[in-house]
Amino acid sequence: MSTPTSTESPFLAACRREPTARRPVWFMRQAGRSLPEYRAVREGVPMLTACRTPELITEITLQPVRRLGVDAAVLFSDIVVPLAAVGIDVDLQPGVGPVVAEPVRDAAAVAAIRPLAADDVEYVSTAVRMLCAELGDTPLIGFSGAPFTLASYLIEGGPSRSHARTKALMHGAPQLWHELCARLAAIAGEFLKVQVAAGASAVQLFDSWAGALSAADYDTFVAPHSAAVLRTVAQAAPQVPRIHFGVGTGHLLPAMAAAGATVVGVDWRTPLSAAAEVVGADRAVQGNLDPALLLAPWPVLADEVRRICAEGDQAAGHVFNLGHGVLPETDPDMLARVVDLVHQLPPA
Amino acid sequence: MSTPTSTESPFLAACRREPTARRPVWFMRQAGRSLPEYRAVREGVPMLTACRTPELITEITLQPVRRLGVDAAVLFSDIVVPLAAVGIDVDLQPGVGPVVAEPVRDAAAVAAIRPLAADDVEYVSTAVRMLCAELGDTPLIGFSGAPFTLASYLIEGGPSRSHARTKALMHGAPQLWHELCARLAAIAGEFLKVQVAAGASAVQLFDSWAGALSAADYDTFVAPHSAAVLRTVAQAAPQVPRIHFGVGTGHLLPAMAAAGATVVGVDWRTPLSAAAEVVGADRAVQGNLDPALLLAPWPVLADEVRRICAEGDQAAGHVFNLGHGVLPETDPDMLARVVDLVHQLPPA
Repeated sequence: MSTPTSTESPFLAACRREPTARRPVWFMRQAGRSLPEYRAVREGVPMLTACRTPELITEITLQPVRRLGVDAAVLFSDIVVPLAAVGIDVDLQPGVGPVVAEPVRDAAAVAAIRPLAADDVEYVSTAVRMLCAELGDTPLIGFSGAPFTLASYLIEGGPSRSHARTKALMHGAPQLWHELCARLAAIAGEFLKVQVAAGASAVQLFDSWAGALSAADYDTFVAPHSAAVLRTVAQAAPQVPRIHFGVGTGHLLPAMAAAGATVVGVDWRTPLSAAAEVVGADRAVQGNLDPALLLAPWPVLADEVRRICAEGDQAAGHVFNLGHGVLPETDPDMLARVVDLVHQLPPA
Repeated sequence: MSTPTSTESPFLAACRREPTARRPVWFMRQAGRSLPEYRAVREGVPMLTACRTPELITEITLQPVRRLGVDAAVLFSDIVVPLAAVGIDVDLQPGVGPVVAEPVRDAAAVAAIRPLAADDVEYVSTAVRMLCAELGDTPLIGFSGAPFTLASYLIEGGPSRSHARTKALMHGAPQLWHELCARLAAIAGEFLKVQVAAGASAVQLFDSWAGALSAADYDTFVAPHSAAVLRTVAQAAPQVPRIHFGVGTGHLLPAMAAAGATVVGVDWRTPLSAAAEVVGADRAVQGNLDPALLLAPWPVLADEVRRICAEGDQAAGHVFNLGHGVLPETDPDMLARVVDLVHQLPPA
């Protein structure tokens, strides 16, 4: 196991609910569209190409660390990278998102989904090793989409607001649903294991769309598969913090915590103090500035940051973050000011 | 006041938490894209034209009543109809939604928004009168978008996932925000009053996007304006039930009830039994079948309908509905089967 367990990292300390002098902060999608240096290196490079080129992954992952002084790097990748790596024909179309050439809707299509081998994502292992060499004491967070969100893209054939076919299959053909999600959980688990083996210090399992489900459906159809992913990481590297996040999941936080997260990501709809109560004293929380507020005047934004830090102090550990990804129209200077302010507000 | 207060209507009885032998059911967006007869009459007719033509409004509103046997009609309209009626240049583009030619982002633009007069929506009054004559004992539900959702369209210039400019203005220029919402509340209130005066027996205030807000922001920036709309209706016609609905509003239900609703619409994420507890014994609930499940096999769907009716029995009154609008790909026969089943499950 090559994972560094630097006790110097405020990010890892907060994830482990250990005392830390500095409140850690990073931003979901910090490596991306809001940075001019990102747009420069991506010029003319398709998204999936960028996600498969170690030098580009490394450069893009490092950009926000250099510019913003965040306490963690997050691997530049995309939720569909492991799907493409097992041979699924998926493309990332600008302005649309993932488009799957042949949507997965029957037993034959599910049976055709093969497991992920470390070799399939050699470009990721290489990038993680390059990153760890560059990052020094700054931890790298590994990243994967969760089974439900991956399944939704495969079944719908692309982004969906209603997830109607996904839910219809889940309820109408539960055995097929569970078979699909078991395969996706194995892929996501292996994808995270590869990143940890190469040096990632923490992982985030990102279930973008889980908030579209009722708690009952989440428990029956999703939680067992997300738990399998997190268990794979826990067995391979018990010391590695496991962050679990989805948008609009206020009603799912206890279940997402119980699925094996050690840190629960929270969006802006749920105050961190309320989240801390439902996820319990044995989990840290991460969040939860509304990314829209980065477009508001600084005094308003600063007040929000202070409120969130005060609410985060009610949790066993608090990693400051947004409640969703950085919006493309964000001024990076506002992100830098947020980092500075969070660093001036040590944990209580 | 020409409003009929038929005590024969199961829909009105359930809204008023009075005993009724039959559990009432209607569907949000029942008058629309899932019906072939709707697509036929809309062929070549732009959406806003349809919303301004009394004969088309009447025909489209009646179609689902004829076909499905629902217990209420809901006025065929669109959330932007009252905005267009006060002279705002807004178009409904197929596949996109509302597009506002000149987004509203400063004091001059807010000051230019004039009040709605009954004359501005004569086509709506005419349609409501025609409908009431046709509908007999079946009540007609009037409809308006709520101030927050209207404001979001005006500020963003169209549909938005993040509502970033809206939230930035709300927090960054709160006085301007409140001025804008006060004007929109006056417009929405007048629009509902016109419908009630012409014969609508109930109203639904639809705050599509309110679920994007934290409870604190909702209380400060939205609730007072939605309350103003509902107060306008209550003062004009105290006996008319006031339904208030938004998607993903599990964390806002108490506030939406307190804003002056007599019936609180609930999406599928919140069990009706839990909703009933938070909105209290002096409000009915409406909901909450996940529209995606209309695409599932009938036995699965039937089980969901039974579960929802059992949970609805925990409320002081239950109007069966979806947890969001009918999806265009829905088979109308499934809607008809749901109506029949709900009618076989009388309130406890």
